[in-house]
Amino acid sequence: MGEIRVIDVNQGIFEKNDQVAAVNRQKLREQGTFMVNLMASPGAGKTTTLIKTIELLPDDLRIGVMEADIDATIDAEKIDAAGVRSIQVHTNGNCAMDAEMTAQALAEFETKDLDLLFMENVGNLVCPAETDTGASKNVVILSIPEGDDKPLKYPLMFQVCHCVLINKIDTREYFDFDDEAAVERIKFCNPEAEVFFVCAKTGEGFDAWISWLKEQIAAQ
Amino acid sequence: MGEIRVIDVNQGIFEKNDQVAAVNRQKLREQGTFMVNLMASPGAGKTTTLIKTIELLPDDLRIGVMEADIDATIDAEKIDAAGVRSIQVHTNGNCAMDAEMTAQALAEFETKDLDLLFMENVGNLVCPAETDTGASKNVVILSIPEGDDKPLKYPLMFQVCHCVLINKIDTREYFDFDDEAAVERIKFCNPEAEVFFVCAKTGEGFDAWISWLKEQIAAQ
Repeated sequence: MGEIRVIDVNQGIFEKNDQVAAVNRQKLREQGTFMVNLMASPGAGKTTTLIKTIELLPDDLRIGVMEADIDATIDAEKIDAAGVRSIQVHTNGNCAMDAEMTAQALAEFETKDLDLLFMENVGNLVCPAETDTGASKNVVILSIPEGDDKPLKYPLMFQVCHCVLINKIDTREYFDFDDEAAVERIKFCNPEAEVFFVCAKTGEGFDAWISWLKEQIAAQ
Repeated sequence: MGEIRVIDVNQGIFEKNDQVAAVNRQKLREQGTFMVNLMASPGAGKTTTLIKTIELLPDDLRIGVMEADIDATIDAEKIDAAGVRSIQVHTNGNCAMDAEMTAQALAEFETKDLDLLFMENVGNLVCPAETDTGASKNVVILSIPEGDDKPLKYPLMFQVCHCVLINKIDTREYFDFDDEAAVERIKFCNPEAEVFFVCAKTGEGFDAWISWLKEQIAAQ
């Protein structure tokens, strides 16, 4: 059909919240809490990954989870049922947690005695990438059923992430997912990104991810 | 662990664009173009569904596709390769098409001679639900791997949709997806929503969806 026509539409709706994020980051560092901002599409397996990760971390690590959702408590209930200290944050329609919301949630959750704090962001590959929350590290989950082209289509998410978990590897035979292409596309966005292939359901591949996470916590 | 604590954080960042959307809708109606706003999470199968749908629609229907992406042309290339008139719209970071962007794209695409226009929105279950584009009908795809709880977590998307396609039914045995629970949760959000179970890869279940679509076009 010939050449593809491209239209650029400009609109700037995002305010910089880097200053508040920097304050959050500083406070967390001072109190010795390592915060992971966990991002992904809806249904990529964020909650299951969190539960499996916490299960495999040392028992003496004091861990908390902030569940950010538009308007539901189903994830916090799952985390709570797994015996983890958790809080539900409602964004009231907002498509991502920003630094100010994170500051509110941190103040409310009393995170001072936590070694490790996970924030499960709203299921979305676009907006959470645009707003620094002040987390120590950003982690994104890409699941096999979503396809290996996601880094091409949502590059900012992969640029801002320190680590990518490629989840649901147990379903590989059902989907056309090219591991090498996926890693290459992630590295094109961010050459420094760590990539781990995992299955949150079974724990397959979690050793490397857990080791990396423990190293990061120790290095903060 | 006791009762779940819930924090509400308020922030209104979305402007009403209903007026522009109404103008788009009126123009499309006057020129006899039926527009479908197709929404879904990243990787739910929007492009594959579009290609299969167009393949199964009557040959004499004049069809066009607007592909909205943050910053990529991969989907428009696929649609173009399938022999369908298409245009790529770049939202430049924006998480959804709004009515103004749609108006720009409609003007640029010269849609006057089209009977049916699909807009593949940005992969996102949050933002596209909040912005009326002026489409004749909203259709959302929910794929089996994402899970049956998505209507609970992204209720607005299911409220604004006229039709829900539950896609990738060929992968049912791999995932815990309760069909009845999914339909019940969709109907709770929107009792009027039509729900079809489909597999865009094979075309399974497409008859009912195509019939519904043809009826809607005829009724406009």
